[in-house]
Amino acid sequence: MPRAWHLASRPDGMPTNANFELKEPGDAPLGDNQLRVVNRWLSVDPYMRGRMNDVKSYVPPFQVGEPMTGGAIGEVVESRLAGFEAGDLILHMAGWREGGVIGAESMPHKLPKSMLDTGISPQTFLHNLGLTGATAWFGLLKVAEAKEGETVFVSAAGGAVGSAVVQIAKAKGMTVIGSAGGADKCAWVEEIGADACVDYKAGNLLKQLSAAAPKGIDVYFDNVGGEHLDAAFAVANPGARFAECGMISGYNSTEPMEFKYIMNIIGKGLMLRGFIVTQFMGRMAEFHEDMGKLVQAGKIKGEETVHEGLESQVDAFRGLFTGGNTGKMLVKV
Amino acid sequence: MPRAWHLASRPDGMPTNANFELKEPGDAPLGDNQLRVVNRWLSVDPYMRGRMNDVKSYVPPFQVGEPMTGGAIGEVVESRLAGFEAGDLILHMAGWREGGVIGAESMPHKLPKSMLDTGISPQTFLHNLGLTGATAWFGLLKVAEAKEGETVFVSAAGGAVGSAVVQIAKAKGMTVIGSAGGADKCAWVEEIGADACVDYKAGNLLKQLSAAAPKGIDVYFDNVGGEHLDAAFAVANPGARFAECGMISGYNSTEPMEFKYIMNIIGKGLMLRGFIVTQFMGRMAEFHEDMGKLVQAGKIKGEETVHEGLESQVDAFRGLFTGGNTGKMLVKV
Repeated sequence: MPRAWHLASRPDGMPTNANFELKEPGDAPLGDNQLRVVNRWLSVDPYMRGRMNDVKSYVPPFQVGEPMTGGAIGEVVESRLAGFEAGDLILHMAGWREGGVIGAESMPHKLPKSMLDTGISPQTFLHNLGLTGATAWFGLLKVAEAKEGETVFVSAAGGAVGSAVVQIAKAKGMTVIGSAGGADKCAWVEEIGADACVDYKAGNLLKQLSAAAPKGIDVYFDNVGGEHLDAAFAVANPGARFAECGMISGYNSTEPMEFKYIMNIIGKGLMLRGFIVTQFMGRMAEFHEDMGKLVQAGKIKGEETVHEGLESQVDAFRGLFTGGNTGKMLVKV
Repeated sequence: MPRAWHLASRPDGMPTNANFELKEPGDAPLGDNQLRVVNRWLSVDPYMRGRMNDVKSYVPPFQVGEPMTGGAIGEVVESRLAGFEAGDLILHMAGWREGGVIGAESMPHKLPKSMLDTGISPQTFLHNLGLTGATAWFGLLKVAEAKEGETVFVSAAGGAVGSAVVQIAKAKGMTVIGSAGGADKCAWVEEIGADACVDYKAGNLLKQLSAAAPKGIDVYFDNVGGEHLDAAFAVANPGARFAECGMISGYNSTEPMEFKYIMNIIGKGLMLRGFIVTQFMGRMAEFHEDMGKLVQAGKIKGEETVHEGLESQVDAFRGLFTGGNTGKMLVKV
């Protein structure tokens, strides 16, 4: 009987184990236009923290007492949905569980066999070839309009989105400065191509960034907010563009964020634009074509931090906020 | 002998009288390509505060011991510059003084006689038909791309730029909510056309703004930053655009600004764009054509707060930061 994580109560600050409950919802009969799925890989993503609050946002909140959802790779074991058959590997949104019966509301998509046949692993469709990669690609190239020859700063460069940004930017001929927490993670960020990486745990972030970017930055890809965003205001060149993707430093906090350099928005004519990858759903073909080539050419490597077993998913999720992952954080079921 | 205000020392926080000195620089001979001018009207503008600091910005800092500059309307009394003759009324940048010898570096422009003949006063070219009006017009219509039927929030709506924004927005069929300090100033903001005005001195700004904009705001024209900007983050509709024109709440402060709602940039997909009116210098004809019609049709009224005599200019300037003006703050020489 497949188990599923349910939201037991809404977290206040950093989520605790008490906020979640692993339950067996019971067996469901397979209806018309439905699939029975066994999940293989589950995604944890920072945006899920927002869904645990009871506030209107671009995705509706999880409901207390109900199973949670999220990206997952599963195998179809029984199909009453046209176009799918047993054995198909699919990407769908009924994550946080071992499997079960899903329908169109979980947006099942078959993984392209042609790409799996080239040796690309199924779980790549939860990161570099999925919404994580699309977030990096659209944010860098379409929201911030980063161009060859420009200098890009990306925070949380050791994370799933950030490490994709680093590699896409390098593949497109940009200078890239990342930030990450700790010497090991910074070394890895440089290993995947960053020209420099500032270690935000090793002293004054702004001083380090100024030294790493003596000519300033033209683009900031923000995953962190707070002190990182303020440092970017300080070193930005006139006309710099900020792709506002995330502010993970604030997700578990109720304190206001402080900015010393925000007036530079005016003096330097900066542009900040918040975005969510779903607004680009109509343009996913552009992403798949370009990113597919980069991945197949080995220019985008997919580092993964893997937790084993559904019971580890809450720990995996909490690890996103404590620097517990290098590359994409995944749960292998 | 014309007197001129000199910067005596750089202010720390709010400027004091000791930061300025009124001196007679001595008589200058009139060289080739120069004009001798007697000034009639002098402008004080919030951006001048930035020029008193020794930091790189979009305009170079004033130098300690040197005369300051700024917008002015003067009368030519002697000309050795082609195209100008005694009696011409001109707009130029050698303000903060009673007059003197100026050249091309002060960017003299003759006021259009055709418009003066319709009864438009010369000092209007220091506000609604000058850079103040252009700041409002380009910021609202080109930076924020505000459209008919949208709801616009503008802070410092009792000031020179803000009151122009209110009136342009109303002339273009938008709903306008202003903010101003005090019941009298708010009443005036509504008198010039705002659908509502929130008094930031009368309690919780965010609560007032939420009540005044039950359907949210589509555009925020920011002159203030700080708490106003944070309230705009809170009530913004998805996809709202913020024209970042000024953050006067921070100009005399060294404290960081605090934001509780800045993460809405991401969740609501907001766009913030800083601008300075000089970036639109190549498009001034568009502004003059449209704004000239609005002013001549009486749709844009030019309220002025006038201080008499050059010696009052420092007080006039300081008044910009303490709510001392309704409409454009001017010094009549």
